[in-house]
Amino acid sequence: MIIHLEPNIQPGQLAEVQQKLTAHGFTSTEVRTQSHHYLVGVGKKPIDIRVIGTLPGIQDIHRVSDGYKLVSKKWRVQDTKIDLGDGVGIGRGHFQIMAGPCSIESEEQVEAVVKHLVANDVKIMRGGVYKPRSSPYSFRGLGQEGLQMFHQICREHGIRIITEVMMVEQIAEMHDFIDIYQVGARNAQNFNLLDALGEVDKPVLLKRGMSGTIEELLQGAEYIFSHGNEKIMLCERGIRTYENAYRNTMDINAIAMLKKMTHLPVIADPSHGIGIRAFVEPIALASVMAGADGIIMEVHQTPEKAASDGQQTLNFVEATEAYRRLRATRKLWEEF
Amino acid sequence: MIIHLEPNIQPGQLAEVQQKLTAHGFTSTEVRTQSHHYLVGVGKKPIDIRVIGTLPGIQDIHRVSDGYKLVSKKWRVQDTKIDLGDGVGIGRGHFQIMAGPCSIESEEQVEAVVKHLVANDVKIMRGGVYKPRSSPYSFRGLGQEGLQMFHQICREHGIRIITEVMMVEQIAEMHDFIDIYQVGARNAQNFNLLDALGEVDKPVLLKRGMSGTIEELLQGAEYIFSHGNEKIMLCERGIRTYENAYRNTMDINAIAMLKKMTHLPVIADPSHGIGIRAFVEPIALASVMAGADGIIMEVHQTPEKAASDGQQTLNFVEATEAYRRLRATRKLWEEF
Amino acid sequence: MIIHLEPNIQPGQLAEVQQKLTAHGFTSTEVRTQSHHYLVGVGKKPIDIRVIGTLPGIQDIHRVSDGYKLVSKKWRVQDTKIDLGDGVGIGRGHFQIMAGPCSIESEEQVEAVVKHLVANDVKIMRGGVYKPRSSPYSFRGLGQEGLQMFHQICREHGIRIITEVMMVEQIAEMHDFIDIYQVGARNAQNFNLLDALGEVDKPVLLKRGMSGTIEELLQGAEYIFSHGNEKIMLCERGIRTYENAYRNTMDINAIAMLKKMTHLPVIADPSHGIGIRAFVEPIALASVMAGADGIIMEVHQTPEKAASDGQQTLNFVEATEAYRRLRATRKLWEEF
Amino acid sequence: MIIHLEPNIQPGQLAEVQQKLTAHGFTSTEVRTQSHHYLVGVGKKPIDIRVIGTLPGIQDIHRVSDGYKLVSKKWRVQDTKIDLGDGVGIGRGHFQIMAGPCSIESEEQVEAVVKHLVANDVKIMRGGVYKPRSSPYSFRGLGQEGLQMFHQICREHGIRIITEVMMVEQIAEMHDFIDIYQVGARNAQNFNLLDALGEVDKPVLLKRGMSGTIEELLQGAEYIFSHGNEKIMLCERGIRTYENAYRNTMDINAIAMLKKMTHLPVIADPSHGIGIRAFVEPIALASVMAGADGIIMEVHQTPEKAASDGQQTLNFVEATEAYRRLRATRKLWEEF
Repeated sequence: MIIHLEPNIQPGQLAEVQQKLTAHGFTSTEVRTQSHHYLVGVGKKPIDIRVIGTLPGIQDIHRVSDGYKLVSKKWRVQDTKIDLGDGVGIGRGHFQIMAGPCSIESEEQVEAVVKHLVANDVKIMRGGVYKPRSSPYSFRGLGQEGLQMFHQICREHGIRIITEVMMVEQIAEMHDFIDIYQVGARNAQNFNLLDALGEVDKPVLLKRGMSGTIEELLQGAEYIFSHGNEKIMLCERGIRTYENAYRNTMDINAIAMLKKMTHLPVIADPSHGIGIRAFVEPIALASVMAGADGIIMEVHQTPEKAASDGQQTLNFVEATEAYRRLRATRKLWEEF
Repeated sequence: MIIHLEPNIQPGQLAEVQQKLTAHGFTSTEVRTQSHHYLVGVGKKPIDIRVIGTLPGIQDIHRVSDGYKLVSKKWRVQDTKIDLGDGVGIGRGHFQIMAGPCSIESEEQVEAVVKHLVANDVKIMRGGVYKPRSSPYSFRGLGQEGLQMFHQICREHGIRIITEVMMVEQIAEMHDFIDIYQVGARNAQNFNLLDALGEVDKPVLLKRGMSGTIEELLQGAEYIFSHGNEKIMLCERGIRTYENAYRNTMDINAIAMLKKMTHLPVIADPSHGIGIRAFVEPIALASVMAGADGIIMEVHQTPEKAASDGQQTLNFVEATEAYRRLRATRKLWEEF
Repeated sequence: MIIHLEPNIQPGQLAEVQQKLTAHGFTSTEVRTQSHHYLVGVGKKPIDIRVIGTLPGIQDIHRVSDGYKLVSKKWRVQDTKIDLGDGVGIGRGHFQIMAGPCSIESEEQVEAVVKHLVANDVKIMRGGVYKPRSSPYSFRGLGQEGLQMFHQICREHGIRIITEVMMVEQIAEMHDFIDIYQVGARNAQNFNLLDALGEVDKPVLLKRGMSGTIEELLQGAEYIFSHGNEKIMLCERGIRTYENAYRNTMDINAIAMLKKMTHLPVIADPSHGIGIRAFVEPIALASVMAGADGIIMEVHQTPEKAASDGQQTLNFVEATEAYRRLRATRKLWEEF
Repeated sequence: MIIHLEPNIQPGQLAEVQQKLTAHGFTSTEVRTQSHHYLVGVGKKPIDIRVIGTLPGIQDIHRVSDGYKLVSKKWRVQDTKIDLGDGVGIGRGHFQIMAGPCSIESEEQVEAVVKHLVANDVKIMRGGVYKPRSSPYSFRGLGQEGLQMFHQICREHGIRIITEVMMVEQIAEMHDFIDIYQVGARNAQNFNLLDALGEVDKPVLLKRGMSGTIEELLQGAEYIFSHGNEKIMLCERGIRTYENAYRNTMDINAIAMLKKMTHLPVIADPSHGIGIRAFVEPIALASVMAGADGIIMEVHQTPEKAASDGQQTLNFVEATEAYRRLRATRKLWEEF
């Protein structure tokens, strides 16, 4: 149950609502986000929500019986829009492409990509400075120093930054240099990290776990939301199956389904999703037709020489063609 | 290795080619299809194909090192077109929708669906008369009698029929009443059935196994082709994964990849692929963007009352809208 | 619902039971096996089984609400024993090892294996004469002629034969030369084959599909049983998962669970289950501790030179040690 | 490549080895653990290891071409033994049972379990105080206060504690109250946590990810080892597959395989592995036969009333019987 509280609810009124919930066998969690104030009630007994809903200080009350609540479309029917300023939005009809290399490597690299993005009217650049790597002996990214360089070049050209955060300690130091925190598949259920990202006033893109269920992805987002941050995007990035023909199996079904289950924007990552350069574009186009609110894809001036994962990365010529087709496909989808 | 023989190759010439192959450590299989005559050579030693290719009676020779050969795009670069007559084709630029109920139930049902298809310019009707069912106590279809009724109504309106064949014995009795034999997921590696379908001069739609690999699907098609039938379509219908949110996980990656690996047409089955009515259309549209040459989908006048699987079946209103969007999406795809 | 009929039930009495079932909204299937006579009732409405159970001609009546019925332990509590004569039994406390090569290759090979089995007191030899192969260009076995040779050598030494049947046509011709029909993973849902095996009076070992569920395996067995054959064994042989470290992922959980769900014997196939020679023995031992009634494993005098699948095949020295450990493990299990 | 350095290697000697590695195109990582000093060299070019191995200050040198190195059995042939004091060891022939509730709930509960363990000669108690939960609204454990209570009761009776650590911040505060840090499946690739656990002088039990590969599990252990902690155990706890009959699919294959790949002890968790109480014991016994060095299982005085996951938890009577059988099975395995 979600109880949307009045902004000016009095402490005594709040206490009364909480007592009433307790009396009906519900536990309640108070949630104060950037823009709203809620009580989330969890209980097993049937209850007539009007008993609660008519109390003073309550704006609205909704029954949500799923495990995830605040992120559900059952109570918030209108899609969430993430606003990045200057007219750059994601969700609620706004479609965005985010492109860039797997890893930030050098000033030259960032400048080349930024120039390519500006030329193609792409507003958001991806690029990792903290890289989760299977082996402890692999390159783990340029770190905070690389991020500041990345940030400076992007700012000069009005490009927003999305980059991965791997641990709670990094959140504060990254804060002023990024526009969107990305949580990778390996951290999809790193609940402490999600809790901490709930306390920040910056958008978060949460990737589905390597074999995460849709339910788990929504529950992960619920962690962030219930700690105070409503600015969440979900990202499908391929799952593990028995099929070895691709690196992962992009689950486009999840995009279609998430769009019905949640009000949060849904982003497709075809680069990791299928992991093979030749198929990134068709999978990206398919994702748009399934309803994706955005595409995050890997682009590099010379994918063959990329520091990591060049096999799934488009070069500038391929990417330019892909942007054009993505936008035409999105346009057709909007006409439907 | 594929050796495309001259139509008028002399027995002595053929014998010479075969001897030469044997001498180089290759086994060879003679394949005579509706339209061509080949030798398929399988061996492990390296060989200069010119040694063979310059012998008399040979039209062309190709190296194909994959497990599947005749179905590979490595030797036949031009896509295969399946011709159903009167300008109805599938593949090589021709896109077709096949629609109809899971099971053929009655004359009234077939008439209603046929009328709906004619009104929407859909040329091919699906509908099972032999149904593979998990339980021996379930309805197993109307059988041959139902097929004849199905055939008669369709013929009157110029509609082609695709329906499932489950055993070798059914091939001959079904032959005159169908246009495309469908092989279901459970029979994807029923090699005796595939062998027998290789000896028929009718198109075959081969579905991927429940957890079949792409390689196995192509090898299954190789069985049919190497027994003499070049008229094969492949069909992606969802695979088994850990995710329970859908009945199957439609693997749209397979569509994009198959289009690069084989010259055979690739069909998408979104109804079985995701198994939930509300998502059939977006998954169908996504499949078109991934390159599918056709869509096979379940349509019923009253899905709620369907004899089987109504949960994944569109009603006529939903289907009519889906056809329109599918065609618009295909049109955009062709412009790319 | 399972209605166990009296052997001497009168036609009029049977008709009365069937009418009563129909009147209560149940469909009924008459099943006459080698040893018993049943009606299987399927319906959705609640019914007081005493209404039926007290009719004349009925021996017993059982409520079984699962999809599979005759193979369920819910009505037949005592485990089924498959009797192969001369004291060789499987199930109900009887443990058997079945060993031999993947493919029957030659007289010398069969003689060597038979000698090895006799020396180790193993009573049943496995070996394929009809081989399901992914590629149409691979060796497909010695066929019927090979089977007769296999049979003759085994008979001379009192060894029973288990071998794979792939199509309905083979059932009759194989009948006199085998002791157990094996249905492979690719045919686990080849329902026509299962139907036909239900009409034979020989034991059948049914393997789980490559990604078959436990429920589907039991339903497959229900096909055989409901067509008249009660002599069925189930076989776990590894499933498909994302893990590529092994050829398949042997699902030992299934063994433990099947032993609670069905009265049929459960056999473990560690050779296919994990597919790596070095791990066949530990997986076989683990299967015994999970409750398996038998082990089927690949043994060859020179696995390195085997016609197929030598990578999962033990040599005679390894096998001899494995038999000893299997029997010791089984002995301990029986003491528990 | 692993270069085992002399304990008294001189800085100049170390520098020389590092320079030589660099000159041959290898990067090197210096690793100083509780007991040893290594250089781990990673490179792609072939190298004659004698060129390095004969330099002063080197005890031994080993070629290890896998992604994981220090945890590999290729260079350390003798199994690692984790010593918990007073003769309680795990690995290198020492078998241990760890039992206890999913969550620590109360003093009464801990006392009851401890009494049960002491009576059954079980030396290690499991029990979570920090619980990873899918939903932010679920009980997340008693935390540090609960841990201190848990610790005090266990110490009085000589019972060791294994409990889950979820974030870097918890490591220090838990240190004095536990004997083994447990890393859960959701944190199997939380690399920062693994790094930090590498700097502690306490054993770590690392669980396989929900769909982690064996390779990833070993790489995760490599993170811990290469940061200085050699006291690592690996734990198989079930993977995600398409089969829904159980909560997870316990992958006993992994136990057999890990025992050949690594010198680290391998523990089986049948409670999470299959997730169904009735099958915990057979799966535990099977794990022992596959070579497990220990079993971690859930036990509770009243599983029906457990705060979490009672469905996979044995009561004291069941557990007592299971311990007896586990020990008898292990004894037989040791005789092989």
